[in-house]
Amino acid sequence: MPQTLTPTEHRVLAAIDMDGLIAYLSELVAIPSLGGSPEENLAQEHVAAQLTRMGFEVDSWQIDLPTVQAHPACSWEVAREAALGVVATLPGAGDGPSLLLNGHVDVVPAGDVASWRFPPWQASIENGRIYGRGALDMKSGLCCAIFAAKAIQTAGIRLRGDLRIQSVVGEEDGGLGTLASLLRGHRADAAIIMEPTELRVAPAQAGAHNFRITVRGLAAHGCVREEGVSAVEKFVPIQHALLELERRRNARDHGPLFMHYELPNAICIGTVRAGNWASSVPDTLVAEGRYGIAVGEDPLLARHELEAAVAQAAADDSWLRDHPPTVEWWGGTFDPGATPVDHPVVAELASALTDATGAPAILNGMTYGSDMRLLVNVGQIPSVLFGPGDIRRAHCPDEYVDIADLRAVTRTLALTVLRFCGVV
Amino acid sequence: MPQTLTPTEHRVLAAIDMDGLIAYLSELVAIPSLGGSPEENLAQEHVAAQLTRMGFEVDSWQIDLPTVQAHPACSWEVAREAALGVVATLPGAGDGPSLLLNGHVDVVPAGDVASWRFPPWQASIENGRIYGRGALDMKSGLCCAIFAAKAIQTAGIRLRGDLRIQSVVGEEDGGLGTLASLLRGHRADAAIIMEPTELRVAPAQAGAHNFRITVRGLAAHGCVREEGVSAVEKFVPIQHALLELERRRNARDHGPLFMHYELPNAICIGTVRAGNWASSVPDTLVAEGRYGIAVGEDPLLARHELEAAVAQAAADDSWLRDHPPTVEWWGGTFDPGATPVDHPVVAELASALTDATGAPAILNGMTYGSDMRLLVNVGQIPSVLFGPGDIRRAHCPDEYVDIADLRAVTRTLALTVLRFCGVV
Repeated sequence: MPQTLTPTEHRVLAAIDMDGLIAYLSELVAIPSLGGSPEENLAQEHVAAQLTRMGFEVDSWQIDLPTVQAHPACSWEVAREAALGVVATLPGAGDGPSLLLNGHVDVVPAGDVASWRFPPWQASIENGRIYGRGALDMKSGLCCAIFAAKAIQTAGIRLRGDLRIQSVVGEEDGGLGTLASLLRGHRADAAIIMEPTELRVAPAQAGAHNFRITVRGLAAHGCVREEGVSAVEKFVPIQHALLELERRRNARDHGPLFMHYELPNAICIGTVRAGNWASSVPDTLVAEGRYGIAVGEDPLLARHELEAAVAQAAADDSWLRDHPPTVEWWGGTFDPGATPVDHPVVAELASALTDATGAPAILNGMTYGSDMRLLVNVGQIPSVLFGPGDIRRAHCPDEYVDIADLRAVTRTLALTVLRFCGVV
Repeated sequence: MPQTLTPTEHRVLAAIDMDGLIAYLSELVAIPSLGGSPEENLAQEHVAAQLTRMGFEVDSWQIDLPTVQAHPACSWEVAREAALGVVATLPGAGDGPSLLLNGHVDVVPAGDVASWRFPPWQASIENGRIYGRGALDMKSGLCCAIFAAKAIQTAGIRLRGDLRIQSVVGEEDGGLGTLASLLRGHRADAAIIMEPTELRVAPAQAGAHNFRITVRGLAAHGCVREEGVSAVEKFVPIQHALLELERRRNARDHGPLFMHYELPNAICIGTVRAGNWASSVPDTLVAEGRYGIAVGEDPLLARHELEAAVAQAAADDSWLRDHPPTVEWWGGTFDPGATPVDHPVVAELASALTDATGAPAILNGMTYGSDMRLLVNVGQIPSVLFGPGDIRRAHCPDEYVDIADLRAVTRTLALTVLRFCGVV
C-alpha cells in the first residue's frame, strides 16, 4: 500500500464493497438495455433507484426528444419514443470544485448468440472475469463510480464540492443522453467518463463520424452482364481511394498521446449491401463506415477530405465520372475532444491511480468515439476518459471485464473524488 | 403475304384473335404471380379455366413437392406450400407427331415500384407496347400459344398429332413446374418454349448455376481496424479471380450459335452482403451470383473450374490461405441444353417464321437459363426457344413486349403446329 494515502483515504478504500459492486453489475447486465429499447429506460430507473437509496438527490426526467434532437450536436441512429435522464448529486459543503462521473447504460446488440460461450444477458463469472453484454461497455465503469461514491458515504465523509453521477442513454448511437443532461443544466468543474481505457488516463479522444457511400451502376440481366455496370465493381476504386486516404491521414503527426497507434484515425468500411438478385447486375451498392477524425482537426474539413477523395476516384473512372457516388454523413457523429494534460482533473486522476494501484499512470489518447466530446465541446467541461477493461473486448461475443480492473478503477475514482472535490 | 401458305393456313391465321390475346394477357398481368406466392397458383387456375373453356383436356394437379424436390434435376429458391401443374391437351387423330408448347406463369418481384413509369401489376398499353411485370417474361409467350391453338380450333381444324400446352410455376427459381410435368408423364415429340428470343429460333441454350461465395475476415472495433481483417477487402482478390476466369472461359470457341455474344458464359456477381455495423470490421461477406455454363460443357467440371479459381486466389493471399472462402451452389441450377439444328421442330419453326412474317429466320443460342434443359436433358424432348420480346427488358422496371411481336409469334406458332402435327 503506497505511503501517500491519508487516514481518511485509507478508510474510504477499506469501505469499498466489491461484492456489492459485482452483484449490482450483475443486476444491470441482466437488463438487456439495447439502445432504443424499453429496457434502456428500465436500466435508468434501476440506477436512479440505487442512487436514491444511497441518499443522492436524484433528478430523473423524461427527455424532451424533439428539443434535444434539434440541437446541432445531437446524433442518433435508433428510434426512441421515450428516453430517461438520470443525474444524481451528492451535495458538497459548497466550497470545493464539483466533479461529474458519466456512464451510459445502453448497450449494442448481442449479435449472433450462437457465437457466445456465455449468455449475453446474464453476468457470468469465470477466472476473475465477468462476462456479458455491457459487462465491459460500460455498465462496469458506471458501477465503479456508484460504489466509489458509496464507499465515501459509508466512511462518513462529507465532500466540499458536489459529486454528480450522470447515467445516460444513447451513447452507443450518438450521445443523445449526455447532451440532454447538459441541456438540462447538469454541469460540473470537471468530468470523468468511465469508458474502457485499460486503466489509461485519457484526456484526449479522436473523433469518428459515420458515413454512407452509395455507388450507382446500371442493372442488366446477368446473362448480358456486359450491358450493365456492376456497382460492386465500381466500388473497388472507391475502396482503394479510402485506403489511400487513410494512409495519408495517419502519416500525419498526431502528438504523443496517439503515437502508439498504428492507425489513430482509422477509416473502417463496416457494412456493404449491393444488389438483390443473384442473376442481375447490381445497380446499387451502399457502404457504411466510420471515419476517424484527429484531435484538433476541424470535422467539417475532415469530411471534405473524404468527399474529395471519393470525387477524385470517381473522376478517374469513365463510368463514375458521369455517375458520381454520393457521400452522406449519418448517425453517430463523434467529434474529437481533448482536455489539457495539465488540468487538475488529469493530474489528480493520474496520481490517484498510482496511489490506488501502485502502478505508474499512463496517459493515452483514445481513438473510439464517446460522450467526451459533448462534455468538452458543448458543455465546456474539462473531461477525461478512465475506466476498466479493453475497448477491443466491447461490441463482440463474450464481452468481459476483469474484476481486478473494477477494483482498481473504483479505488482510483474514490481517491480522485476525495482529492478533487476536497473533504470537509 | 407469302405465297407458300395453304388455304387452311390462311384460314387459321385469319382466325387469330389479337384483341382477345391482349385482353387475356392483361388479365394474367393483373395477377401478381410471384414465384412462391398464392397468386402463382391463381394464375395457373386462370390458365386452366381458359384452356378448359377452349375444349382442351386439362390435367390440373397439386404437385407433390417433396417427390419433385427430391429429383436430382430439381432446383428452387423460394418456399412453396402448394404448386399447381397444368397441362392441356388438344388430342389429334393419332397419326402425327405431338408438340408441346411450354410457358411459365411465375414472375420475378417488381422491385422498387417507384422506378416504374407504369404500374407493374396492370397491363398498360402505349405506342404498340404492353407494359407490366410478366408482360414479357413470359405471360405474353404463353398467351401466344393459347391464342394460336384457339385460332386452329376456330378455323375448325383437326390435327393429326396431339397439341399440348404446358403452363408451369417455378421457372424463375429453378424449373420445378416443368420438371413436375415431365415426372407426371406429360411428353411430346418436340417442344417449343415461348421465352423471349426477339423472334430468334433458339435450339441451344447456355446454362447458369447460382453460386454463393462466403469470405471470412476477423471482426474488430472500427477504431482498431488494423487488428481485424475486413471480409470486404479480402473479397477483392476473389472478384479479380472471377473476372479473369470469365475472360478465360469466354475466349473459348462456343460455336456459331453463340459467336455474336461478347460473353456467352457471363459470370455475374448479383448480390453482396457484408458486416452489420458501420463501426466494426466486417468479419463475413456473402456474394451470390450466376455462373454461365457453355453448351456441351459438363456442369460439374465447370463448377470445379470456378472452385479452383477461388481456391487459387485464396492460396495467393496470406489471410485467405488459412481462411479459405467457401463456394456453395444453390437455387437456380440451369444446365445448358441443345437440340440439333436440323431437327424437324427447328426447321418447321424457322420456315413458319419466314412464312408468317416475311422475315428470314435467324438461329441463335440463348445465354439465359430456362426450362429448356429440363425438357431436353431430363425429358429427352427436342426443344427450341422461340418467343416475343427481348430478354433485356425482363426482370427490370417497365418490362414490356411489342404487340407486333405477339402477332408474329402467334402466327408462327399456329403455322408450326399445323405443319409439325399435321392436319387431318
